[in-house]
Amino acid sequence: MDWDQETYLPPGGVEDRANQLATLGGFTHQMFTSERLAGLLESAERELDGAPQDSFEASLLRVTRRDHEQALRLPAALVEDLARAGAEARPDWLAAREQKDWSIFQPRLERNVELSQAVADCHGFEVSRYDALIERGEPGLSTRRVEELFEQLKQAVVPMLAAIQERSDRIQDGVLDRNYDPARQIQVSLAVIKELGYDFHRGRLDISQHPFSVAFGPGDVRITTRVKRNVRDSCLFSCIHESGHAMYDQGVPRDLDRTPLWGGASSGVHESQSRFWENLVGRSRPFWRHFFPLLRDAFPAQLADQDAESFYRANNRVRPSYIRVDADEVTYNLHVLLRFEIERDLVEGRLGAAEVPEAWNELLARYLGLPPPDLVSGPLQDIHWVSAPLGTFVGYTLGNLISAQLMDRARLDLGDVDALLEAGDFSPLLAWLRAAVHQHGRMFTPDELTLRATGAGIGTESWIRYARAKFGELYDLSW
Amino acid sequence: MDWDQETYLPPGGVEDRANQLATLGGFTHQMFTSERLAGLLESAERELDGAPQDSFEASLLRVTRRDHEQALRLPAALVEDLARAGAEARPDWLAAREQKDWSIFQPRLERNVELSQAVADCHGFEVSRYDALIERGEPGLSTRRVEELFEQLKQAVVPMLAAIQERSDRIQDGVLDRNYDPARQIQVSLAVIKELGYDFHRGRLDISQHPFSVAFGPGDVRITTRVKRNVRDSCLFSCIHESGHAMYDQGVPRDLDRTPLWGGASSGVHESQSRFWENLVGRSRPFWRHFFPLLRDAFPAQLADQDAESFYRANNRVRPSYIRVDADEVTYNLHVLLRFEIERDLVEGRLGAAEVPEAWNELLARYLGLPPPDLVSGPLQDIHWVSAPLGTFVGYTLGNLISAQLMDRARLDLGDVDALLEAGDFSPLLAWLRAAVHQHGRMFTPDELTLRATGAGIGTESWIRYARAKFGELYDLSW
Repeated sequence: MDWDQETYLPPGGVEDRANQLATLGGFTHQMFTSERLAGLLESAERELDGAPQDSFEASLLRVTRRDHEQALRLPAALVEDLARAGAEARPDWLAAREQKDWSIFQPRLERNVELSQAVADCHGFEVSRYDALIERGEPGLSTRRVEELFEQLKQAVVPMLAAIQERSDRIQDGVLDRNYDPARQIQVSLAVIKELGYDFHRGRLDISQHPFSVAFGPGDVRITTRVKRNVRDSCLFSCIHESGHAMYDQGVPRDLDRTPLWGGASSGVHESQSRFWENLVGRSRPFWRHFFPLLRDAFPAQLADQDAESFYRANNRVRPSYIRVDADEVTYNLHVLLRFEIERDLVEGRLGAAEVPEAWNELLARYLGLPPPDLVSGPLQDIHWVSAPLGTFVGYTLGNLISAQLMDRARLDLGDVDALLEAGDFSPLLAWLRAAVHQHGRMFTPDELTLRATGAGIGTESWIRYARAKFGELYDLSW
Repeated sequence: MDWDQETYLPPGGVEDRANQLATLGGFTHQMFTSERLAGLLESAERELDGAPQDSFEASLLRVTRRDHEQALRLPAALVEDLARAGAEARPDWLAAREQKDWSIFQPRLERNVELSQAVADCHGFEVSRYDALIERGEPGLSTRRVEELFEQLKQAVVPMLAAIQERSDRIQDGVLDRNYDPARQIQVSLAVIKELGYDFHRGRLDISQHPFSVAFGPGDVRITTRVKRNVRDSCLFSCIHESGHAMYDQGVPRDLDRTPLWGGASSGVHESQSRFWENLVGRSRPFWRHFFPLLRDAFPAQLADQDAESFYRANNRVRPSYIRVDADEVTYNLHVLLRFEIERDLVEGRLGAAEVPEAWNELLARYLGLPPPDLVSGPLQDIHWVSAPLGTFVGYTLGNLISAQLMDRARLDLGDVDALLEAGDFSPLLAWLRAAVHQHGRMFTPDELTLRATGAGIGTESWIRYARAKFGELYDLSW
């Protein structure tokens, strides 16, 4: 129903759809928190006592128990309040954007902060309320841990960005703004993601305002994209990103289907898959050595003066900008950091909703060196704060970090990955991700999964090394 | 999920979708037959005792009680057997068609007959098992009543058809086989059904193998069509037919939404709406006087030698044929009669599944004067017997009868309906149907509703008079 809502729902069907989603959501919550389910879970736990922690059966009970308790902790009234607050906030967010007036959205954010605090209080936490929100999205992680990761990134990226900016004229990207036929962009994107390994027998591509991926089961994992007349707002990279998510879900074994273990381990781990394909593969030099001819065949006039190298460079220009989703790899995590700090301070009561625009501008100047944006390019740009609980931004940076760790390990296991990419031989990489990540579904926490796949828990070292090497070479810098 | 299955589901998603439908169907049945619901229904009945029969409240309880008891009578195991038998029969039906071998499908039909008998036995009946199947689909009707209606039709149609066949050269329809661009056919169809009154704000048109209409709620009633390179398998008439169904659902008041009263009164009444627009409007002379210019603008070369009159005539050629869905108005009910007699005799044990092809050929010769067809053009042509319970064909003829009764009454109430059609002023007709039929949702039985709308219960007189007048004029005959 969500997929349909974003793709084909007629405008008159919005009210019906909201009712349908609320009804099914209510039944689901009711059935999942029932005493009958609690009883079944307890007797299964007694039966399986002593099974190895990483067995399917023990994992099934552990994860179901976690989900069950998480659901039980939220009273039905709070679940309804969350749904209603999100639905009510959306039109005010749109109106605030339309009128560039923070005060229209501010009471909605205040309400969402209160609701986030209520969720945190129901969930329970050791140190701070924001811990509870992180734990809900990324089991096993804490605010403290995330702060450490961001601190390491900040130490590395802020000076890297400053150095790059002194050499900003080394890369030009005007080619991205030329006129590219949208239908042909879609054709190229379909060809590319099919070659990467997205299985169209078990999926499809549609158009929606915001690209997304959604899994209905192991045999049906769909993606959407948007397309404009330029390739700066890239249809192709959106497709690669979403097909990264989708290949993850297509790789979770059918054995786990229709159990709570089916699906991705967390938002952060899911994002590691989309970023892996979008950035570590799709924004790499060997990728463009392989695919540039396809693109030039599709757009001979637009790309007449380009080659694989120049197009690779154009797609990797680093430049501080206002919009997170358009950010390059170097500045992207700073966008996430900014949002993380603001929402953490909101939830922990150190910042009021009225002060958000000021805090935003201050952090933007500090991390990205940019003058204050208008509100639509500032704190009203993302839809995330339209609904509660807050705490969802950190997944983006965790995804970047894990993706680099996975690639480091894949290079150890597979040898010359760049040669594979340049030859268009993507299947060893997908098979490696299947074995390292996809096959486990939701069995392990993000840290456990990263440790199993790479030999270490989530850390910044791989990503920082990757960024320094790649952008150092591009901008002729060394750190 | 059904809509998606017929339109956009990727091939790999079939198994997932079957599981999802079975799961939701199981929960629905379980919740609707729960003791909790029975208790709520009883206490509401006590509270409302004495409310007028045709009030919303009394109707709500009466219809919910009927649905509830109908659901209660079927044991869960039988519900599962029905679902499984349908799923299992489909591939064998396809294989039997492929190999033109009745023996492949015959055991499936035997099973479906047994299951239909089991459903009848659970449901209960006064005279015959087939009564129970009719009553389930068309509340208040009986086998005896349907037999009477068919007998009257047969008496009128068989000689009418014989007379027409002696003058078969009076109408030529070769124009329908010319080459019409499918995309342009869709454009024309969209324009026509929009003008008729199908609300695209609350609906949409997609492509599927078999055209259908489906309602997700008052704000979202969708239709599908198919399109070929000719207009004999008419995309336009499919669209008009399905939009007739859809305008019915779009006209059921939002007041009734999310109650058991929302929706159409029965299959037969639903078919009265699709047939009303497809045949009584869409295959009428004034309709083509209005719309022929639009069609000729779209297909100037194909229609250069045609005018509204010749195209009207081409679309009303009467000719016995093997395929029900392609049949003209005169022969259509004979196709239904043939199926009705066969399935009635199957369910009542007078005919074995092995004897169906022979019985088919015999009835086809008797009613339509045709030599035996191959199986695909014979008893394997419809998908209806792939699932149990049988008993669904009668709705098609009931729909034809009711549509003619409604048109007779609309002519009384609205005056010169032909003038409205020729002027392209369809809204009075739609408004009349809204008031006479749509507004009541499922409140009344087919007979009650027809009586309210037209002053008489379901009968054959209107349809016979309509067919004699229309085809008498077209073939220069009088009865």
